[in-house]
Amino acid sequence: MNSLLVHTAWELRKLLAELRRPGVALGLVPTMGALHAGHGRLIEQARGDCGLVVVSIFVNPIQFNRQDDYERYPRTLDADLSFCKARGVDIVFAPSIEEMYPGRQRTFVEVERVSEKLCGKFRPGHFRGVATVVTKLLNMVQPDLAYFGEKDAQQLAVIRRMVRDLNMPVEIVAAPTVREPDGLAMSSRNQHLNAAERQVAPALYQGLRAARDLIRRGATDPEEVRKAALAVIAEQPLLRVEYLEIVDPEEMQPVKTITGPVRVAVAAWLGSTRLIDNVLCEADTA
Amino acid sequence: MNSLLVHTAWELRKLLAELRRPGVALGLVPTMGALHAGHGRLIEQARGDCGLVVVSIFVNPIQFNRQDDYERYPRTLDADLSFCKARGVDIVFAPSIEEMYPGRQRTFVEVERVSEKLCGKFRPGHFRGVATVVTKLLNMVQPDLAYFGEKDAQQLAVIRRMVRDLNMPVEIVAAPTVREPDGLAMSSRNQHLNAAERQVAPALYQGLRAARDLIRRGATDPEEVRKAALAVIAEQPLLRVEYLEIVDPEEMQPVKTITGPVRVAVAAWLGSTRLIDNVLCEADTA
Repeated sequence: MNSLLVHTAWELRKLLAELRRPGVALGLVPTMGALHAGHGRLIEQARGDCGLVVVSIFVNPIQFNRQDDYERYPRTLDADLSFCKARGVDIVFAPSIEEMYPGRQRTFVEVERVSEKLCGKFRPGHFRGVATVVTKLLNMVQPDLAYFGEKDAQQLAVIRRMVRDLNMPVEIVAAPTVREPDGLAMSSRNQHLNAAERQVAPALYQGLRAARDLIRRGATDPEEVRKAALAVIAEQPLLRVEYLEIVDPEEMQPVKTITGPVRVAVAAWLGSTRLIDNVLCEADTA
Repeated sequence: MNSLLVHTAWELRKLLAELRRPGVALGLVPTMGALHAGHGRLIEQARGDCGLVVVSIFVNPIQFNRQDDYERYPRTLDADLSFCKARGVDIVFAPSIEEMYPGRQRTFVEVERVSEKLCGKFRPGHFRGVATVVTKLLNMVQPDLAYFGEKDAQQLAVIRRMVRDLNMPVEIVAAPTVREPDGLAMSSRNQHLNAAERQVAPALYQGLRAARDLIRRGATDPEEVRKAALAVIAEQPLLRVEYLEIVDPEEMQPVKTITGPVRVAVAAWLGSTRLIDNVLCEADTA
């Protein structure tokens, strides 16, 4: 079956009014396009859970803190449509900027504390932009379930907190990070890497695995774990680490001692490309 | 018919799932209780438009910038229930603070610019608290229509802008201010006035009417209009004006020249009670 492509909230509403059935779950997979296997995983999961699946494709200007990053973000709508069609997506919602922000946007959703550290510190306004556009998309689609990848762990934590705090009538479903065979987390930004950068990029995940191994074996001092992970990454001098932190998975605050599940999260630059990755880990109890 | 009283989001959801019918409009009248004829007007309007009417009663702590104001805000739940019952309200939703804010609230909805002047300037955080709790209530009830009074004109402008900017699937309906025979706008706070204060309180509306008369007759200089209104109010020395401004009705910004419809808005103190009022006006074109 063909995926139906709509560009306006009005067409979307009309289509959903036709296609929604009581008792049939509606799933939304919000994306910025340039779809890859990570998105594929989200769509598959939505397809398994829901009778009706909507994928939104919108490169959201208000979540970019740098204009050049916004401009060079990959846009591949034709390929994205084939990708969605091949995976049985019912509706692709690809609004224009004018459709999403017809006037001056005055209203913003802020998730304090959870947004504060990690990417929030280095990309001011980023999570405000994410929370705001996700709120808009949830209100437009009114899905029963919405799907987000664990690769963007802080984004996931922000959205979960927002949905809970604002009593949004939707269930947030997380899907695990999909990786290349050499461990690099799938990301639309990977296509910006040149050959040399692409070759060293997996060192990020190697650093995270080193951290996870230490934590599994009982390390409780985050500073010790950080140093070990950073040492692995430092073997690739092309990689410039922006942050590497060990945080609690709910509020994304650096922990003083590792006593339960934590997320080890990293951001690093390779040339002019910024990559992020993370792993959830805790001590082996066996 | 008795109004059904529920205290939790869970009971509310269960009840709405039972009572909602396709094609039957659901109306929400959000209130802080201490219901008076102004609320009565909102309920009447909702009752006329909707097959199912929910009134929420919740004194929202996060919209009070002063703890003493929050504490002495009138709470009259039994009288409010009779009031709702007499007007054919289907459901009264009266949640506890713990129900509305079970954890630490981290997520806030901010409406910039519209929230900035007038009450926004003198009650820092007030409209952030209003926008946040209204978002929560709209998500809990999921009404087709929601009703707000014009007495709180800036609140109305903030909510309208929020709903538009965040694509919330609800229609906002405004109902006109209801006044005592002597012109005083109905307010839950009027019951705090002592006899002397109550007697001079209508001077606020008299000032607004003086402004409206000037504007109707073609005055275009807001400063001239302000002075005339303030002179009327100043005849009652008990009234201490906090602000009196002539603003555009959408973004609530003071206008430089009166060229179209404007709102004249005033806030004033009578002893320890703060009152607000406003009128919408424009030049007679006849």
